[in-house]
Amino acid sequence: MSSFHALHHADRPLLLPNAWDYASAAALADRGFPAVGTTSLGVAAAAGKPDGVAATRAETVDLARRLRGLPCLVSVDVEGGFSDDPAAVADLVAELAELGVAGVNIEDGRPDGTLAPIHRQRQVIAAAKARVPEMFVNARTDTHWLRPATAAALPEAVRRIQEYAGAGADGVFVPGVVDDEAIAALVAAVDAPLNVLFAPGRHTVAQLAGLGVRRISTGSLLFRAALDAALRTAAAVAEGGPIAADLVGYAEIQRLLG
Amino acid sequence: MSSFHALHHADRPLLLPNAWDYASAAALADRGFPAVGTTSLGVAAAAGKPDGVAATRAETVDLARRLRGLPCLVSVDVEGGFSDDPAAVADLVAELAELGVAGVNIEDGRPDGTLAPIHRQRQVIAAAKARVPEMFVNARTDTHWLRPATAAALPEAVRRIQEYAGAGADGVFVPGVVDDEAIAALVAAVDAPLNVLFAPGRHTVAQLAGLGVRRISTGSLLFRAALDAALRTAAAVAEGGPIAADLVGYAEIQRLLG
Repeated sequence: MSSFHALHHADRPLLLPNAWDYASAAALADRGFPAVGTTSLGVAAAAGKPDGVAATRAETVDLARRLRGLPCLVSVDVEGGFSDDPAAVADLVAELAELGVAGVNIEDGRPDGTLAPIHRQRQVIAAAKARVPEMFVNARTDTHWLRPATAAALPEAVRRIQEYAGAGADGVFVPGVVDDEAIAALVAAVDAPLNVLFAPGRHTVAQLAGLGVRRISTGSLLFRAALDAALRTAAAVAEGGPIAADLVGYAEIQRLLG
Repeated sequence: MSSFHALHHADRPLLLPNAWDYASAAALADRGFPAVGTTSLGVAAAAGKPDGVAATRAETVDLARRLRGLPCLVSVDVEGGFSDDPAAVADLVAELAELGVAGVNIEDGRPDGTLAPIHRQRQVIAAAKARVPEMFVNARTDTHWLRPATAAALPEAVRRIQEYAGAGADGVFVPGVVDDEAIAALVAAVDAPLNVLFAPGRHTVAQLAGLGVRRISTGSLLFRAALDAALRTAAAVAEGGPIAADLVGYAEIQRLLG
């Protein structure tokens, strides 16, 4: 079992913070996180492209290349794989594996807001695993993400994560699920480790651990906090108010840039 | 006089916040800043490359390309122009002008920590202005930036900004100068608008305006506040503490991405 796989089966859930550029990833690794994910929203926003519409394949691979050599494992959010063709998604996974990437997130939400057909998503997952067996493939279903929560979302999520695990996914991810009961139902539905998206004010790591969650992602949370801090600092300068934000020092940034 | 030039001769000094990627620039423009600069430290750190050693020409031009179409004027920090050859620096300035860039910062600090010879820096400034007369060339001297403050720094800065203004610079920039008396001396030394780097806890916009400063840059301040917020948020999630940071919302980010 690779070290990244092992982090999903440890005493505590894997807390996977999500970065959007080299600096954020390097700083998180430096603070001791053993693995760092990427956030497709952050990568898209940094590049000035829309998220979730398969527009950022080049930027995603470019970021993975820049993260080579960081003292952390790296998992890359590839949206739906930037293609409807399972072979093309497998090509991407192989390209990322050559860059040292330990895991990928592949989602079933499509640019038009629908969910990919289950048989198609199984083909994508199976193709990725067949091409790169050692890659940790985290299969994300957007049942709770693309639509307002409905009673139908939970059974649909259960069905999809079971299907995806059956197709070879190493882990399953249901962003947007917040209720304890729903999370417990998802944990009970599959042997594969369940990943949820941390919801500020709703979740704590300890609570999610108690429910059996094995991986907790921050998604775009850190990116959105960072952007907010930049804007608040600019406003404080403009308005003559105190500069409330702490700062990462020059020396630390120079050290991160090695 | 172009609109960017005019911002240096208005009732109040130009507060120029510095961005490092599309999202930060777009968000600052959206909050009403009429002009946004780039920070070479932020651009370098985002890319995982060292700052100030002419390593990020491609990333710098790429960012300028991505910022086309934003509802703000853009000024680009080109370090020393990524070349010792005045013609090559002029080529870069022309390339940026074609991307709609309104201003550039060109510094005399060199990768080895020395200051470029004055006659050489004059050639660079003159070449840039000759190639693109409408470009606002902000000539930065690193007298106070590269070395601990010494008694010799101020007369050296005065001499350099006079020489650079004489070579055609539209503005002059002395980052690292903090004392009121030194700032007043620099303002008095040249007709060209003086730019200083905002020092949190030392400066306010009103104080700098009173001293005659015409442009106030935030440098890497916003970038370093953003990175700090990301790290603090990740730590709060890990430690189970409250998530203190405010967040830019999904809807705002989607809007920025057009």
